[in-house]
Amino acid sequence: MKTLKIVKIGGNIIDNKEALAAFIAVFSKIKGLKILVHGGGKMASNLAKKMKIDVKMINGRRITNAETLDIITMVYAGKINKNIVAKLQANQCNSIGFTGADGNTIVAVKRAVTEINYGFVGDVVKVNTDTMIVLLNNDITPVFCAITHDENGQLLNTNADTIASELAIGLSTQYKTELYYCFENRGVLKDKNNDNAVIENIDTNTYQNLIKQGIIADGMLPKLSNCFSAIEQKVSKVCIGNSEMFFEPKGKFTTIKE
Amino acid sequence: MKTLKIVKIGGNIIDNKEALAAFIAVFSKIKGLKILVHGGGKMASNLAKKMKIDVKMINGRRITNAETLDIITMVYAGKINKNIVAKLQANQCNSIGFTGADGNTIVAVKRAVTEINYGFVGDVVKVNTDTMIVLLNNDITPVFCAITHDENGQLLNTNADTIASELAIGLSTQYKTELYYCFENRGVLKDKNNDNAVIENIDTNTYQNLIKQGIIADGMLPKLSNCFSAIEQKVSKVCIGNSEMFFEPKGKFTTIKE
Repeated sequence: MKTLKIVKIGGNIIDNKEALAAFIAVFSKIKGLKILVHGGGKMASNLAKKMKIDVKMINGRRITNAETLDIITMVYAGKINKNIVAKLQANQCNSIGFTGADGNTIVAVKRAVTEINYGFVGDVVKVNTDTMIVLLNNDITPVFCAITHDENGQLLNTNADTIASELAIGLSTQYKTELYYCFENRGVLKDKNNDNAVIENIDTNTYQNLIKQGIIADGMLPKLSNCFSAIEQKVSKVCIGNSEMFFEPKGKFTTIKE
Repeated sequence: MKTLKIVKIGGNIIDNKEALAAFIAVFSKIKGLKILVHGGGKMASNLAKKMKIDVKMINGRRITNAETLDIITMVYAGKINKNIVAKLQANQCNSIGFTGADGNTIVAVKRAVTEINYGFVGDVVKVNTDTMIVLLNNDITPVFCAITHDENGQLLNTNADTIASELAIGLSTQYKTELYYCFENRGVLKDKNNDNAVIENIDTNTYQNLIKQGIIADGMLPKLSNCFSAIEQKVSKVCIGNSEMFFEPKGKFTTIKE
């Protein structure tokens, strides 16, 4: 089985022109099969502000009404995605930008309305791998933004971390998949104020202990939940860290094991 | 050689929700290989207005500064392109959205500054067909918006009619390509106020006569120029008309022959 690396980058890279250029240069040089997944950073909120559209957040999650979905589609699938693809091409990394609608790659269902109506937010139900396999076999790198569809013509906003783990899980039948979450910290930190206190290895046991101790908390909870969901579903390796994971000499980062 | 149909749609369809839905339904049912190319319609100008960005036009052409390029990328490659792809999927037409940067399919150069500085406008220099052939062989329909790139990381605004003809020309070595320009009229009209006065066939001779007589004028000049450029470069058929070209019973339309 060939190895396929799935790398997710977030706002700290996307919102910083120099960091993005440096990342794209190093990502382009990663040998073998790879997929890039990107979040949205602050650009969508900035555009909403310019257009005087309210951004509603509940528990740190964006409420996606029709206007907000338009903004997300424009910013994620348009501005960010296409500029990344153009920059990858300039680095001789042949790539194609994707939402889950493209090639019907990621099918989601609109989240049911309970106490909270999240609006046009999608939960992934299926990853169709055929088109991605064809492209990967032709040395083309898919670049995914955080948008899926429901197969009935509706685009849906979906968390980029989740998209990355669902791709890694879905493609694990065809490839030895490795999942890299690249964010602002060097990994899971013992002390959140000390970027050197990286916990280098976490397995299911230490994971439970770290939650109990309150070391894994807040935004790290869903991130780690995505990681373990991936590991439990045949993803062979999950790493969390900042972009130093890809530069030489490599910095410290966290590796998740079963 | 297999036949490949390349269909270009403009603002009269894109800006009208019902017309777009009807077109997508009929386009999805076209048998055989096909590519869709879409223009931008009024949405980009509307967004620019909302964001209080001036739209500068010279001789009916949009001047594309960096802010305008961002808007175009968001609207064309994001909102319009991805919604079309999602709607095609809902009609069981498997498709992937493209700019010229995706798959390095359409390479352009930034137009040289003369008396007029058009800004980030690209003139096509090369069509790379490999990725499109792979996708078409896998029953996937590429959907192109009017954006190209320069292989150095810069996206460029490029006329959608030109993109359609360049694709038809570039792919004519592999396929019997047919080019369909779908716009607001039923074809080239003898009398521009009478939509029934369709000139059903135009060859090089009648073309020159129609220009002399002033029947082909204004916006029809560059459109017909694209048509004859395609016909002269091995595109086997070029048709101009409204979306009736694809519905049964077919309405009148104009066919261009050498």
